[in-house]
Amino acid sequence: MSNPTAAMLVIGDEILSGRTKDKNLAYLADQLTAAAIDLREARVVADDHTAIVAAVRALSSRWDHVFTSGGIGPTHDDITADAVAAAFDAQIDVRDDARALLEEMYKRTGAQINDARLRMARIPDGATLIDNPVSVAPGFTLGNVHVMAGVPAVFRAMVTSVLATIKGGQPLISRTLRIDLPEGDIAAPLARLAAEFSDISIGSYPFILNGQFGANIVFRSADETRLASAIQKFLVLFPQAVAQ
Amino acid sequence: MSNPTAAMLVIGDEILSGRTKDKNLAYLADQLTAAAIDLREARVVADDHTAIVAAVRALSSRWDHVFTSGGIGPTHDDITADAVAAAFDAQIDVRDDARALLEEMYKRTGAQINDARLRMARIPDGATLIDNPVSVAPGFTLGNVHVMAGVPAVFRAMVTSVLATIKGGQPLISRTLRIDLPEGDIAAPLARLAAEFSDISIGSYPFILNGQFGANIVFRSADETRLASAIQKFLVLFPQAVAQ
Repeated sequence: MSNPTAAMLVIGDEILSGRTKDKNLAYLADQLTAAAIDLREARVVADDHTAIVAAVRALSSRWDHVFTSGGIGPTHDDITADAVAAAFDAQIDVRDDARALLEEMYKRTGAQINDARLRMARIPDGATLIDNPVSVAPGFTLGNVHVMAGVPAVFRAMVTSVLATIKGGQPLISRTLRIDLPEGDIAAPLARLAAEFSDISIGSYPFILNGQFGANIVFRSADETRLASAIQKFLVLFPQAVAQ
Repeated sequence: MSNPTAAMLVIGDEILSGRTKDKNLAYLADQLTAAAIDLREARVVADDHTAIVAAVRALSSRWDHVFTSGGIGPTHDDITADAVAAAFDAQIDVRDDARALLEEMYKRTGAQINDARLRMARIPDGATLIDNPVSVAPGFTLGNVHVMAGVPAVFRAMVTSVLATIKGGQPLISRTLRIDLPEGDIAAPLARLAAEFSDISIGSYPFILNGQFGANIVFRSADETRLASAIQKFLVLFPQAVAQ
């Protein structure tokens, strides 16, 4: 049985302009790998209603889960919730359960609740709330789309909330061997090995360190025995390779 | 006249598994902003022929330029060149000009040229080569798609080579003001300001620092005078904001 699949959708002009360096994709990738959910695609789009709707539709129809980040705050450029609702033809308005969470928090902190803040309680009909232990204003899951904040501390807390509700697959075991040779010297025997072990993922990731070429060869499989066989054969070919 | 538009396509299983943290998107975003080319979308796809072909077709038909990173080395998982050729229905084979570059380098370094290394000379018919001052093996431009290496040092050198050939638009001026208030306290007046200055991009990027909420408000326009007017009005509303 194959693992559940996923995509990420990063929403925000600030990522595309270079002003903000996205850290959420790398975090989500690590978390999904640990949960044995296969991240297959990621997209970054601007704060643009049409672009968000199109991306949500494309990704949610193709993969088991879609994780979004960004655009669910109280300001005029926070348009993600309405766009996700539109992608599913769902109604959206301030919802009582989300409003209650915000009201309770603002009562506690003494801050003013206002129309802008109530935007954060706009939740599509049929969505379930995603817990936000950092700053209360919730994310939501609509269909197979998990809508989360862009601020990394909040995003991470929401990912934890969501992953507790999703069943992953069989974890992949990953082994990396470094070889201090240019890829061109190892490519032919490596290709034969990859063909022989076609049930195993074998990737070659080149690097340049102090002007010298090398590559990390990554073997991934759920089957420990097959993995060990492939690595044994690789080490016969390249005894100088070093486990990382 | 509006600026040229662009998309980025990052190709590689290692980004989606979390093994490698992509740095090329952030670099390209900065470079394109400096060149007044609008990066509108980015995608990350796996080392999968069908996925690469589909993404190249979608992005190249929608935007003026597409910049790809990854998958042009000599190993079995380097399939980008063939996929980009397929996306344009172009023929691809080892091309004499690229082969000559490699032969000259390997003669100089004393390394063996072999079938794997010759894969790096596979260039689609009709493509122009992208100079690679770091490790010689060239990228290429086919139609409006610029195909570059994933290793950051090589990617950066190739971006420089490509940008020298592209005419950008009118550079945007960007001003950032930090305000140490939760977005919910500034959202309503900020929305009115954004409506009044609809010709200017005004974005609000929240942060949490030492448990306190704040936001960076970013004003972007090619028109210095309009930008100054918007910022002046903003400072009347929020005199405590601090230029960054």
